[in-house]
Amino acid sequence: MLRFLTAGESHGPCLTVIIEGIPAGMPFDAEAINERLRRRQGGYGRGGRMKIERDQIEVLSGVRYGHTMGGPITLRIENRDWVNWQERMSAAPDAGENSEPVTRVRPGHADLTGALKYARDDVREVIERASSRETAARVAVGGVCQQLLAQYGIAIHSHTLMVGGVGYAAGAEPDPAAADDAFWARVAASEMYCADEALTQTMIARILEGKRNGDTCGGVFEVVATGVPIGLGSYSQLDRRLSARIGQALLSIPSAKGVEIGGGFGLAALPGSQVHDVSRYDATPEGRGWYHLTNHAGGIEGGISNGEPIVARVAVKPIPSLAHPLPAADVRSGENVDVTRYERSDVCVVPAAGVVGQRDG
Amino acid sequence: MLRFLTAGESHGPCLTVIIEGIPAGMPFDAEAINERLRRRQGGYGRGGRMKIERDQIEVLSGVRYGHTMGGPITLRIENRDWVNWQERMSAAPDAGENSEPVTRVRPGHADLTGALKYARDDVREVIERASSRETAARVAVGGVCQQLLAQYGIAIHSHTLMVGGVGYAAGAEPDPAAADDAFWARVAASEMYCADEALTQTMIARILEGKRNGDTCGGVFEVVATGVPIGLGSYSQLDRRLSARIGQALLSIPSAKGVEIGGGFGLAALPGSQVHDVSRYDATPEGRGWYHLTNHAGGIEGGISNGEPIVARVAVKPIPSLAHPLPAADVRSGENVDVTRYERSDVCVVPAAGVVGQRDG
Amino acid sequence: MLRFLTAGESHGPCLTVIIEGIPAGMPFDAEAINERLRRRQGGYGRGGRMKIERDQIEVLSGVRYGHTMGGPITLRIENRDWVNWQERMSAAPDAGENSEPVTRVRPGHADLTGALKYARDDVREVIERASSRETAARVAVGGVCQQLLAQYGIAIHSHTLMVGGVGYAAGAEPDPAAADDAFWARVAASEMYCADEALTQTMIARILEGKRNGDTCGGVFEVVATGVPIGLGSYSQLDRRLSARIGQALLSIPSAKGVEIGGGFGLAALPGSQVHDVSRYDATPEGRGWYHLTNHAGGIEGGISNGEPIVARVAVKPIPSLAHPLPAADVRSGENVDVTRYERSDVCVVPAAGVVGQRDG
Amino acid sequence: MLRFLTAGESHGPCLTVIIEGIPAGMPFDAEAINERLRRRQGGYGRGGRMKIERDQIEVLSGVRYGHTMGGPITLRIENRDWVNWQERMSAAPDAGENSEPVTRVRPGHADLTGALKYARDDVREVIERASSRETAARVAVGGVCQQLLAQYGIAIHSHTLMVGGVGYAAGAEPDPAAADDAFWARVAASEMYCADEALTQTMIARILEGKRNGDTCGGVFEVVATGVPIGLGSYSQLDRRLSARIGQALLSIPSAKGVEIGGGFGLAALPGSQVHDVSRYDATPEGRGWYHLTNHAGGIEGGISNGEPIVARVAVKPIPSLAHPLPAADVRSGENVDVTRYERSDVCVVPAAGVVGQRDG
Repeated sequence: MLRFLTAGESHGPCLTVIIEGIPAGMPFDAEAINERLRRRQGGYGRGGRMKIERDQIEVLSGVRYGHTMGGPITLRIENRDWVNWQERMSAAPDAGENSEPVTRVRPGHADLTGALKYARDDVREVIERASSRETAARVAVGGVCQQLLAQYGIAIHSHTLMVGGVGYAAGAEPDPAAADDAFWARVAASEMYCADEALTQTMIARILEGKRNGDTCGGVFEVVATGVPIGLGSYSQLDRRLSARIGQALLSIPSAKGVEIGGGFGLAALPGSQVHDVSRYDATPEGRGWYHLTNHAGGIEGGISNGEPIVARVAVKPIPSLAHPLPAADVRSGENVDVTRYERSDVCVVPAAGVVGQRDG
Repeated sequence: MLRFLTAGESHGPCLTVIIEGIPAGMPFDAEAINERLRRRQGGYGRGGRMKIERDQIEVLSGVRYGHTMGGPITLRIENRDWVNWQERMSAAPDAGENSEPVTRVRPGHADLTGALKYARDDVREVIERASSRETAARVAVGGVCQQLLAQYGIAIHSHTLMVGGVGYAAGAEPDPAAADDAFWARVAASEMYCADEALTQTMIARILEGKRNGDTCGGVFEVVATGVPIGLGSYSQLDRRLSARIGQALLSIPSAKGVEIGGGFGLAALPGSQVHDVSRYDATPEGRGWYHLTNHAGGIEGGISNGEPIVARVAVKPIPSLAHPLPAADVRSGENVDVTRYERSDVCVVPAAGVVGQRDG
Repeated sequence: MLRFLTAGESHGPCLTVIIEGIPAGMPFDAEAINERLRRRQGGYGRGGRMKIERDQIEVLSGVRYGHTMGGPITLRIENRDWVNWQERMSAAPDAGENSEPVTRVRPGHADLTGALKYARDDVREVIERASSRETAARVAVGGVCQQLLAQYGIAIHSHTLMVGGVGYAAGAEPDPAAADDAFWARVAASEMYCADEALTQTMIARILEGKRNGDTCGGVFEVVATGVPIGLGSYSQLDRRLSARIGQALLSIPSAKGVEIGGGFGLAALPGSQVHDVSRYDATPEGRGWYHLTNHAGGIEGGISNGEPIVARVAVKPIPSLAHPLPAADVRSGENVDVTRYERSDVCVVPAAGVVGQRDG
Repeated sequence: MLRFLTAGESHGPCLTVIIEGIPAGMPFDAEAINERLRRRQGGYGRGGRMKIERDQIEVLSGVRYGHTMGGPITLRIENRDWVNWQERMSAAPDAGENSEPVTRVRPGHADLTGALKYARDDVREVIERASSRETAARVAVGGVCQQLLAQYGIAIHSHTLMVGGVGYAAGAEPDPAAADDAFWARVAASEMYCADEALTQTMIARILEGKRNGDTCGGVFEVVATGVPIGLGSYSQLDRRLSARIGQALLSIPSAKGVEIGGGFGLAALPGSQVHDVSRYDATPEGRGWYHLTNHAGGIEGGISNGEPIVARVAVKPIPSLAHPLPAADVRSGENVDVTRYERSDVCVVPAAGVVGQRDG
């Protein structure tokens, strides 16, 4: 029903997204989407570029007088750094004559795979699209979707569980079912998007330690959707399962290497008697109807939402752009390249400002 | 390019699958697919039904004289138990007059979510399709795909890493890159599809211990694809990323609650300098061209296969059909149901006989 | 929302179709679908095979006690002639040793294009799937969809307008808006599915005349959907337009070469003042709300249904299997083939027993 | 493989299109696309707006140094009239306070259906997207595709066969197989995109006559694709048939009411012996291999391209914006509206500047 395409290079004039299938008459709040973009750019340990850019959407179609009209919505996010890249990223046929190609392929990036798949010997033509800057466009899409979901009382939040090995102790993770507005306010106030202030400071210390070594961190974040009605997704056909769709969305984040629904890998080691969530029916007049005593399933049973909060966790690998770079190779000659330092020195992933956001690269 | 739909109920006359998009002229080996179906039905701790059924495909279209013709391939897997269910699962309008409905909704199953989504007050109409028997049809599809991939030198294997908390010690897991034919032969010979014979016995003991307590186990299995060329998948649009597609496929397995690519969650705690895989070029005449010194990425960089084995792990929750059942509820009245014992007493998941296979439920 | 795949060869064991997305709880009437299949096989001028086959569906999944369960529906149509083709169409690898290949490519068939696309030098492997027998599976799908649409008061009928140049005089075509049950009963009673009895006889005479010359006829039929609510389809994105979807469906009929919506090609020659349908609002208590004074648009404005009957016409080319065959060529040698007579001598298309049905070939 | 979404309103800031799936390394000629946009805006009988706008693409992603990079291509077409519409089409929530809604629903437009489907009582929010200005974005997409097809020697042209009932005499239509560069040059030079100069003048006279009566014309145009290899499309599954895909594309043009492939409706009245195209094989060294003696099939047999030119014709209804308007109704009250004159007075469709172009509305 709902489709979208994102487009744009990291140093091109802009990112663009077209979203198709949003109903007409939905209140549209551009500022709320800009707030999500700001959150994506926030967090501790931002590199230089994150300060240059202050992403904002420009609404180019689909919205009039503050509400949707039923047609496709076009959002544009200008790249403020474009002025410095107009020549190197020009679309004009004759602009590339004096261009110096990038031929070095770096570990942990799409450099090698993209150069070989698309037969590009100027790796810039790979890294510009493979860059996680693309996720700014996704955050904008996610912002529109959140406004649609809000009409049905569904809210989506995310917070950081671990960075570089520093995180909540086993068994001491916050209970998603108990996360209230105050909890999410603490998350929003934290430089690490972590509700625990002390843990936030330890995470920052961990990042600084990595930075001193010229190294980088990964982490784990959790996404929680509340207010989800019973009945989304289906076991009828495998690609309709809600778990499969969430898995696809979250593993499409460029640096994601793992996804868990509910108890995830932990459930695999427990006996069945401790895993499955007993359901009960509340028949009182103001009752909530069907509910579960626990939520190990993360809100999905049989590929269908069961009314409990949907809980998913994502593992993000460390940023591949190290200050003390890893050995690289030359895509044209195949020879090793002597690398002393990358241009940029971002040191940390701060995950998930929005549904699937990620920092620029 | 390639589409398929599976169909069929757990106790209906048959499972059926139509696969569309397989090229013409591909050698088609029905016996190799039957072998995969046997593997799915093997493993320690099978319940009664697994012995009744000896799944076999019947080829109803798309194949002639042992090769494909380019049209859709139809495979049918007969349910050998159908003779005992013809009345209870009849399609005829007047067959249900004396039928006794199932109204109990069990924890960990699709019973409640399916009954509410599809407005069924006879839960049998939910559990028949939500049953993991559906995965037999997927194994058949996977078997066809493996024959296509084999034409390009790509092989897919899987093995068990952990059952009920019993598994390889951290750091002692088998290296997928070193898994040779002998390794996979040991896997095939193990009742637990585990290459380590001693570990196989400990896993069995763990299952028996659970069984004595009327309890069940989950587990973790690993899928390894070798011979994959550089270039499958793309960062160009998020739904083209190979990681996203693998995540979708694996999290569509009914009991899957987690997926990892390569180092997965473990990578999130490591410094970047220990995570990213350095690439090298082998220019010797018989050289293998581009390769990587390590494979923490699990064969995917930038959403594109990088030539190394693709490695993914799946966490499977314990079987929800406990011998000492969990409390259930009545879907019509909402009241608790006093359950003493389920009809069947399967006690263990033996994962992945094929790409996404799972035991019957 | 709704997907289906058809499968099966013309002389294989059966046709199979899996339909996914039909809601649960819908009354399912197998006999009504069989009636549609009978209609497809009826009509004047049937060849020998149409008498052999008496198509019937077998329901293999998705239906219980006369209603749908929400899972995929599998329908199987047995090929009663299969017993005579078991060897020539066997899936077994060693069955083809003494097989005599078909190498002649006939005009007007998929013989040449299929043989070259799929690199088949036994043209039988092309004609078995390209055969219009596949449309029997579509008629079954259409029958299921009609039962779903009937829940919303939508009915779909079709009738023959012209055969071999013999048809209604210009301006004397029946008005679809005036077609009542009696009209459709006359259509059903006609050997040509034409409501006009005299015209039916002239059409039959035309077919017999062609038959005497060893020649064949094409024709034009009209599909009329009544009870369609305002609002199906959209101008929002081009592939959502209802006109585009109808065009796709109707031009997917093997022998279809033209499609018109409403006034079609005739509208192109008229002045705008005589074409566009003036809308009115009926505000009386039992009023029908919005309606139009005319229906030149065929029920679609702006790619959206407008509440009037949806009217489409399809042009079907003459059957390519002539009794006095056209010159053929040999797909292996490229040489002309001396053809004296085809095996079968079907002489007429009787269109549209169902949504998109067509006779066997 | 190839996806695109168009977006934008008729009087919004711009039209935008994102095209995904174009290979890397393809030469990209923006000027050639602008030429197609100019052709769309040309033709006799243009209204005022066509003179205001001089459409041009701005390339916002996917292209560097005159070639594609493999990522999504974003094209933007600025609406030069936007400066006059900034208030009436503003996205800002408070901009609509003094806005005067459009409540009149006009015959032949999407006004009524769109207003009811999307529950809009300001019809402007319908007509802005339903406007055929959207086809400018399609012409841009078509321009990109033509550059891709040109790499394989495939060319697509179109020309006008009839306007307002004035066109080629039956049997005197130009033979698409004989259309050479000189023919297409005459088409390009004609104000009506008609290769026949005398006919061009008669068509113009016909338009002027309509204009004097405050009336409008429709027409028929033909699309011809040459250089198409044997093998595109398939009979394997109905939605893969090339005829079905062409039907979908052409009937998605806002005013299209009919489509023919090859001989189309005319074939339905002919005997089979005069319809089917005999194939021959040219085995000489420079030979063209398989070809056909005639091309009644319009280049498609069995849903697959057969190597001959693909020929399709489209019937376009008259423009619904008459100078002497048809009776309208008020979407809020349901009452008839007394209309004396529409704002604009376009009088003619000049079809198909590109694959699916159409004039602005």
